[in-house]
Amino acid sequence: MARFVNVAAGQLGPIAKSETRTEVVARLMAMMRRAHADGCDLIVYPELALTTFFPRWYFEDQAEIDEFFEREMPGAETRRLFDLARELGIGFYLGYAELTVEAGIVRRYNTSILVDRTGAIVLKYRKVHLPGHAEHEPWRKFQHLEKRYFEPGAGFGVTSAFGGVMGMAICNDRRWSETYRVMGLQGVEMVLIGYNTPVHNPPAPEHDHLSLFHNHLVMQAGAYQNGTFVVGVAKAGIEEGVEHIGGSCIIAPSGEIIASCTTTGDEIAIARCDLDLCNSYKRTTFNFDVHRQPRAYGMIVERKGVTTMADGTPVPPKA
Amino acid sequence: MARFVNVAAGQLGPIAKSETRTEVVARLMAMMRRAHADGCDLIVYPELALTTFFPRWYFEDQAEIDEFFEREMPGAETRRLFDLARELGIGFYLGYAELTVEAGIVRRYNTSILVDRTGAIVLKYRKVHLPGHAEHEPWRKFQHLEKRYFEPGAGFGVTSAFGGVMGMAICNDRRWSETYRVMGLQGVEMVLIGYNTPVHNPPAPEHDHLSLFHNHLVMQAGAYQNGTFVVGVAKAGIEEGVEHIGGSCIIAPSGEIIASCTTTGDEIAIARCDLDLCNSYKRTTFNFDVHRQPRAYGMIVERKGVTTMADGTPVPPKA
Repeated sequence: MARFVNVAAGQLGPIAKSETRTEVVARLMAMMRRAHADGCDLIVYPELALTTFFPRWYFEDQAEIDEFFEREMPGAETRRLFDLARELGIGFYLGYAELTVEAGIVRRYNTSILVDRTGAIVLKYRKVHLPGHAEHEPWRKFQHLEKRYFEPGAGFGVTSAFGGVMGMAICNDRRWSETYRVMGLQGVEMVLIGYNTPVHNPPAPEHDHLSLFHNHLVMQAGAYQNGTFVVGVAKAGIEEGVEHIGGSCIIAPSGEIIASCTTTGDEIAIARCDLDLCNSYKRTTFNFDVHRQPRAYGMIVERKGVTTMADGTPVPPKA
Repeated sequence: MARFVNVAAGQLGPIAKSETRTEVVARLMAMMRRAHADGCDLIVYPELALTTFFPRWYFEDQAEIDEFFEREMPGAETRRLFDLARELGIGFYLGYAELTVEAGIVRRYNTSILVDRTGAIVLKYRKVHLPGHAEHEPWRKFQHLEKRYFEPGAGFGVTSAFGGVMGMAICNDRRWSETYRVMGLQGVEMVLIGYNTPVHNPPAPEHDHLSLFHNHLVMQAGAYQNGTFVVGVAKAGIEEGVEHIGGSCIIAPSGEIIASCTTTGDEIAIARCDLDLCNSYKRTTFNFDVHRQPRAYGMIVERKGVTTMADGTPVPPKA
């Protein structure tokens, strides 16, 4: 038996600040048509795929920030993408900034959705691991204010779609082994991840030359250690003066990269993924029911860090 | 500032079933002298480094099994290794099968110890993730009866030694991201791991060609994701007819392999490790206190697997 899903990693080149949603959606639609022509069931777009990566700037005016957010999905400019998906019978993952009102309170999330072949949203995910900082740090060449502009999501769900168990994560989530494991424990077979990753990390420039290596390392390990496909998709290239890595790729449950983009522009990379390849990992080396030892893992939820407990209090001294 | 630890990965070639402890200890001592001559502070030996890898056989007679176990450490045959360490002023990690009596009950563990420059044991670790199976499975070319011959240890501790925070794991532990994270949450700066890994995995031979790739992938990811050095050391080569991978290596907190063995025999690979290289990862990308989100990780300790809760009951159906 084989359960094939043909997937396209739909990498985007830079989006200028001046570019309109309508212009960006036209780029997404062009890639969707290309992926469909190439036989794909699903195309994965990057994180925050509708605008430039705005957390690189410090804005004082909330109204200016909110212009980067979507108040409804689909909205006026994005509906055409949903319509095309339905027309072609192809699904998609899309990252965007979400503004919503919950119990009278405005909430802002870094969000992704999974849309099926009928144009219906079948899973929504809100980024858990927000990187960067919350206050303006003028010494940086550019800001990374995700901790200021978003609040973290609650967790990692999965859903049955495209013949398998699908999950989602966003950008910095991919560096954290917990991301993959929580979905692995729900039987995930394909994890979809969009990202925007500057080559230069102002607090640790000594690692800049390793950005692409780290990008692949964490996704390959997450795939292998959970017996799942991983699809990682960049917004790449020099955007508003900041260089972002590409490296979009599709990874098998073996941890092997089976397709990858080679440019830093709009480009699709395609792989024919047999979801049944997950089985031999999930049933042998990574048969969690047989081999995991949760009683040894308590610290993972009890502590936030080396010095702080999960509830924010200091770690008590050793007995 | 820099805190250097010069480490040797002390890889062993095969140990025949007929080989005595005294003969093996002589091989370990020869490598220890070599590492000392090359300026090392610490040499890391493999898992179960005193005998052949006996879980490959099904024994009916417990007395025959117990011949592979140590009842004291150091014992009559291993004392010379401790004495040499003290004489040279070099530390070591040693894996062995431990038989101990706790509250009148005989316990058997797959154990490692960390010995300091004075010949004193400063940390003991008992393998948490026992691979393989508990019952005789005659269809296999060879057995992997760790689940029969050992019981799992309780967890992953660390200690201050060699100027840094040191932790240990054994073989299959290295495939599990929880292993590194639990030590990372205690500030580990160097994780020492011995292993015996057959090239051929009878339940999933379709992955045999990837054994070395997987070996490196999991240790490199564990290093990077926790900002720690990792030293992985094999018992390698064809032992009693079973081929084991080599691939012993020393990995920097960047995830880069900075030293590796190239044979499958007795061989040391050396790296001069600046423990302060951990800092830039632990303070930026992997500053756990700032970036982890334990409220999203509950499932990691609540569940054992996809179908079983941590307490052994079935996973309840989705609400």
